[in-house]
Amino acid sequence: MAIETLHWEGGRPGFARLIDQTRLPTEHVVLDVRTVPDMVDAIYRLAVRGAPAIGVAAGFGVLLGIQDLADRTADEVLAATTATAATLAAARPTAVNLFWALDRMKARAGAEHAAGRSGDEIVAALFDEADTIWRQDKEICRRLGQVGAELLKDGDTVLTHCNAGALATAGIGTALAPIYEAVGGGKRVAVFADETRPLLQGARLTAWELDQAGIDVTVISDNMAGRVMFEGKVDLVFVGADRIARNGDVCNKIGTYTVAVLAREHGIPFYCVAPLSTFDPSLEHGGLIPIEERPPAEITDGFGRTTAPAGVGVYNPAFDVTPARLVSGIVTEVGLIREPTTERVEEALRRGGRLAAEEV
Amino acid sequence: MAIETLHWEGGRPGFARLIDQTRLPTEHVVLDVRTVPDMVDAIYRLAVRGAPAIGVAAGFGVLLGIQDLADRTADEVLAATTATAATLAAARPTAVNLFWALDRMKARAGAEHAAGRSGDEIVAALFDEADTIWRQDKEICRRLGQVGAELLKDGDTVLTHCNAGALATAGIGTALAPIYEAVGGGKRVAVFADETRPLLQGARLTAWELDQAGIDVTVISDNMAGRVMFEGKVDLVFVGADRIARNGDVCNKIGTYTVAVLAREHGIPFYCVAPLSTFDPSLEHGGLIPIEERPPAEITDGFGRTTAPAGVGVYNPAFDVTPARLVSGIVTEVGLIREPTTERVEEALRRGGRLAAEEV
Repeated sequence: MAIETLHWEGGRPGFARLIDQTRLPTEHVVLDVRTVPDMVDAIYRLAVRGAPAIGVAAGFGVLLGIQDLADRTADEVLAATTATAATLAAARPTAVNLFWALDRMKARAGAEHAAGRSGDEIVAALFDEADTIWRQDKEICRRLGQVGAELLKDGDTVLTHCNAGALATAGIGTALAPIYEAVGGGKRVAVFADETRPLLQGARLTAWELDQAGIDVTVISDNMAGRVMFEGKVDLVFVGADRIARNGDVCNKIGTYTVAVLAREHGIPFYCVAPLSTFDPSLEHGGLIPIEERPPAEITDGFGRTTAPAGVGVYNPAFDVTPARLVSGIVTEVGLIREPTTERVEEALRRGGRLAAEEV
Repeated sequence: MAIETLHWEGGRPGFARLIDQTRLPTEHVVLDVRTVPDMVDAIYRLAVRGAPAIGVAAGFGVLLGIQDLADRTADEVLAATTATAATLAAARPTAVNLFWALDRMKARAGAEHAAGRSGDEIVAALFDEADTIWRQDKEICRRLGQVGAELLKDGDTVLTHCNAGALATAGIGTALAPIYEAVGGGKRVAVFADETRPLLQGARLTAWELDQAGIDVTVISDNMAGRVMFEGKVDLVFVGADRIARNGDVCNKIGTYTVAVLAREHGIPFYCVAPLSTFDPSLEHGGLIPIEERPPAEITDGFGRTTAPAGVGVYNPAFDVTPARLVSGIVTEVGLIREPTTERVEEALRRGGRLAAEEV
């Protein structure tokens, strides 16, 4: 994978460099993000998107807010970290990785502050933390790929929705990682990519990155998923997640729930692939996950051409929730959670250190 | 309903006048079709679309091919009718109303010819036949509306897919007719319109005509249908059909099958609304219906902007088949066929004169 979705450039001080995903697939443009407001903007308008990538971007965003404060007091650096994190947290409401990464940054600053470090030392520690989040994301993607690849047989065809690939992470992706890993290991795997209205992440991003990697990909409009399953063309489904509740309910891009219902109807296994950072143990079930509603113009004027009458009603929820009962398994870096239940999710979270042993 | 989707203009000789539906919703352009090749083109590129409207347009298309032959022999007019019908039949493969209307025109010409009529008299008879198809379509739409309106309660919300409204017929539509009829009768009815990729007939046409009629309509992208059903916002589904097999399997716009699976999952009644001319008694089940595949560019370049990488695989079936077991009922001009089976469909077709009493 030659795709470098986002990374930190130029040391300290430096800036975040990312592929502007609003320009794909026709233009491959790199965007340098040098201020906190610009990072909020990049996240909101989806120049960088995908739950894990948003987490990494949030870490870099904190650096943009504190990197010039090395000569300030420890109190000032800690306060700036908290304030920057609050600004970044408002960019998008659903993907929990955003808050998870910001919590990590704040916790690191707090720990360094409590240990009596100087402002300069706290800044240095935050650079280390953001770099660690970025590196771990790459490593976790690879691990998700290894765990998920075991579910793929030679000759399988996978249907995926939205983009949970390299462009959604710092590494080889979540839902697409098993495909890269299986193909790298010599299996033949073909992919149906739902185009994923309204913003077409499947047609624009998934098709682009799989095509770049030489993997057989066929774009369909979302409403064709049922037909290709009916025709017996799909062996299994892999999707990513923006937030997973403690009972295994999966919040992901709008349309994922429909794919899950269709997969169940056709007896096709439906897998979610996500790092433990995507889980939100504080929410008992998916009904508690806030669902971002985005502007009507994404549906009515998404292509440089108006495709609905002016002023007509529009509903544009960006995500939906797939109940755990429709999920065959969740692929995580600590292994596969088969037919997720609260108990099985908690066990995996404990094993991965996201839930203390004594927490229930 | 002030919408005049298509009609014949100027007597004999004359031409077909139709709303160019490729220009809606931003431009209301009327197209005058004066030759057979232009009618084939209008049908193929969907300037006129919707199974019943295609049938009416086919009748007018035959007139374009024979209206200047009044001074020819009866043999010549009959031959021209057959040749023109063959040309029109090649425009699109799935909607059976096209073939049904052409068969009517050919049968009328054949009957007049057999009765010893002159060329001029056969031409006049064909004008009468095309006019009858047009008038009957209006009448049948109204009847579908009356039968279907009984399924609607005050305050109901209907989800519909594609456009099976006034723009798909010469009258008030098929799937939307019950809504117009119920609203006209004082019931409050709201509508979710699936935008219906790739050609967006829901966003462009259904939203436009319902908005024109002052009916509460909300556009969603196709992959949101599952979510709005999950949220409890949908009371029933009405869709049209392009062809219905003898066992009640419904072929309709791609995505209809997915809506049917979702409706069943949520316990929501799923009704198809279609005239008897949409039934194809020659096909035992829906698997025998030819499914039109349309150009990849409809998916990758549908909006004046390229939304997928160049050269990537694309699959673009224009229709799918919903098995009868997922259909709560088919609303026809001779009444509701509840939970359709071959026996019930045959009974309705016999009642409507589309199947001779002795045929089985």
